Amino acid sequence: MPTISVRGNEMPASPIRKLAPLADAAKQKGIHVFHLNIGQPDLPTPQAAIDAIRGIDRKVLEYSPSAGYRSYREKLIHYYAKFNINLTADDIIIATGGSEAVLFAFLSCLNPGDEIIVPEPAYANYMAFAISAGAKIRTITTTIEEGFSLPKVEKFEKLINERTKGILICNPNNPTGYLYSRREMNQIRDIVKKYDLFLFSDEVYREFIYTGSPYISACHLEGIEENVVLIDSVSKRYSECGIRIGMLITKNKTVRDAVMKFCQARLSPPLIGQIAAEASLDASLEYALETYDEYVERRKCLIDGLNRISGVYSPIPMGAFYTVAKLPVDDSDKFCAWCLSDFEYEGQTVFMAPASGFYTTPGLGRNEVRIAYVLNKKDLSRALLVLEKALEAYPGRVI
Amino acid sequence: MPTISVRGNEMPASPIRKLAPLADAAKQKGIHVFHLNIGQPDLPTPQAAIDAIRGIDRKVLEYSPSAGYRSYREKLIHYYAKFNINLTADDIIIATGGSEAVLFAFLSCLNPGDEIIVPEPAYANYMAFAISAGAKIRTITTTIEEGFSLPKVEKFEKLINERTKGILICNPNNPTGYLYSRREMNQIRDIVKKYDLFLFSDEVYREFIYTGSPYISACHLEGIEENVVLIDSVSKRYSECGIRIGMLITKNKTVRDAVMKFCQARLSPPLIGQIAAEASLDASLEYALETYDEYVERRKCLIDGLNRISGVYSPIPMGAFYTVAKLPVDDSDKFCAWCLSDFEYEGQTVFMAPASGFYTTPGLGRNEVRIAYVLNKKDLSRALLVLEKALEAYPGRVI
Repeated sequence: MPTISVRGNEMPASPIRKLAPLADAAKQKGIHVFHLNIGQPDLPTPQAAIDAIRGIDRKVLEYSPSAGYRSYREKLIHYYAKFNINLTADDIIIATGGSEAVLFAFLSCLNPGDEIIVPEPAYANYMAFAISAGAKIRTITTTIEEGFSLPKVEKFEKLINERTKGILICNPNNPTGYLYSRREMNQIRDIVKKYDLFLFSDEVYREFIYTGSPYISACHLEGIEENVVLIDSVSKRYSECGIRIGMLITKNKTVRDAVMKFCQARLSPPLIGQIAAEASLDASLEYALETYDEYVERRKCLIDGLNRISGVYSPIPMGAFYTVAKLPVDDSDKFCAWCLSDFEYEGQTVFMAPASGFYTTPGLGRNEVRIAYVLNKKDLSRALLVLEKALEAYPGRVI
Repeated sequence: MPTISVRGNEMPASPIRKLAPLADAAKQKGIHVFHLNIGQPDLPTPQAAIDAIRGIDRKVLEYSPSAGYRSYREKLIHYYAKFNINLTADDIIIATGGSEAVLFAFLSCLNPGDEIIVPEPAYANYMAFAISAGAKIRTITTTIEEGFSLPKVEKFEKLINERTKGILICNPNNPTGYLYSRREMNQIRDIVKKYDLFLFSDEVYREFIYTGSPYISACHLEGIEENVVLIDSVSKRYSECGIRIGMLITKNKTVRDAVMKFCQARLSPPLIGQIAAEASLDASLEYALETYDEYVERRKCLIDGLNRISGVYSPIPMGAFYTVAKLPVDDSDKFCAWCLSDFEYEGQTVFMAPASGFYTTPGLGRNEVRIAYVLNKKDLSRALLVLEKALEAYPGRVI
């Protein structure tokens, strides 16, 4: 029997999914599981998108262009202009989800052995895409005590060597909800410029910023226009994770030309997804406001609730719909598994993502979990009560 | 400005697309271009698939499971059973098109530097996916004179060394239309067994076999069940290239586990595509028969027509909907470009794929083109006349 590849072995299992079999087993025992583990919004997809799909009037579901439909890319110009991101349709390549955009960015920009610097905790799948491209992620640790703010320049410079090819940020951040300040973004710009690095910037949560702080896109930074590769996706914005539509955006034509070769090899992004995504641009302002208001309220409900539980601490996330919270437990991997396999409160339990999977530095995140606020407030309140009861009953509780 | 990756540079431009700008320019001059260059069927998608999409009744277009919907994978068991391919739902992983299935197969099975043997001419994007995985394609040449039949074992063995990890075949073949005989498939089985290689088998055209010869799937070969990775796609079968649904199928659990890590990293295959693909399994028998009969007639029309043109030769393709034909020209790259940029006959011209792009051995395919018979007979007949006139007028004609 031939052996699989080294990267096939090295690929990490998804931290938000590794406990899924335990959740399935709990459900089979009749326990209701509150899913706080995954960024799948429960909010409705815009009606305009559903209508566009239901209204499809085609005889042949044919390939779309490898870069995506031009009509869609042209409409996107206006969307980005609202955020002071000024693009032409040529700057935008439609990808099969933000996932493919990250993979193609890495394959196009990074050689095997090249390194990129990523603040941790970080979205775990960046690691998977780096392994796919043979690249190495070097992490710079941010801490819950400092609210996950960016470390000083010196810490970055310590990691920079001749193999360093880029920095990757997620802003607003998954998993922490952190939003980079202008000062922090300028600091990143200066490092990128000084060492001539790529800046991969995943900004899929830009709609979800809950403080008065401004959203500083990597595309707003002056003097590094050719270094920036923006990663985007419609998944969270319009609650349409399943249609697999994302974008890779860059002013750097050499990068675009390379990315387009990978795009041509996979022929085209999903046709029907593009139709839905294009129609979503016509979603009403009310849709956006209702979605936003809902997350504002859930965030308050969740964060207030967490901080009221004895021994629990969560910073106030400024954006996205996640928080990383500290729990009074010996090991959040064990605690999260225990909640699913050994605990229930009045027939209910909670499914959270242990934070260790978002760190690459061994040992970090051991008493942290990521919680997504993608449930309605009633369920969220109930989930908080169940979590409180679980923490009271857990044998590995500390303090 | 940071530099792109070596693989970003090395990626070949798609041979079926590199002349696209010339075709666009011809169209802008008002010339009608017959597209013989691309495998985009013009036949209708099954009504059942369109109806399923139009009938979508969901509030949220959410992630589907990373391996694809279980309901779809269970229905597929019956589809494959009709071809004597006996599977369980666990053996089947739904991919974002056959393209992703090839990429994930390579990423999971091949290390950088590993080699796979591929008969050439071959589907050009295999090369792109091999480059993405850092693997190397070694080609074994088949010739139009021998009808693109498989060379003898000795030729394979000459290429095998300690880096050889697999053989890839496409059966029925794109671009040649060749169908491997039982003798040839047994020969491949013996080599795979002797050297313990992976056998990647792309069988997306199994519905389109026009001779009495039996279809021998790689999955029919005894004793190498753990070596076979089947690549499949609904694109051609149901004329639904745009929905991006394919499959990676293997009895080898270690390979499946590795592939699933790549699947989890990209979260899920397209949701709506899966709904369409699942509904397509309910397409009427009439749909399959009409599609089949149409290709049979087109094939006859095209091959007879080609062989009637002075100096042109095409073998009779046994399957798929392509043929590789020999033309009396100095250089088919130049000829195909010339047809688009310098020629028209009564306001019409032809767009063919120069065969050089399907060979990796330099210099091969110089007087060959790939022609897809994805136009109706009337257009196909007319395109043949235009081709004949082009060959008469072309300054680089030989003999």
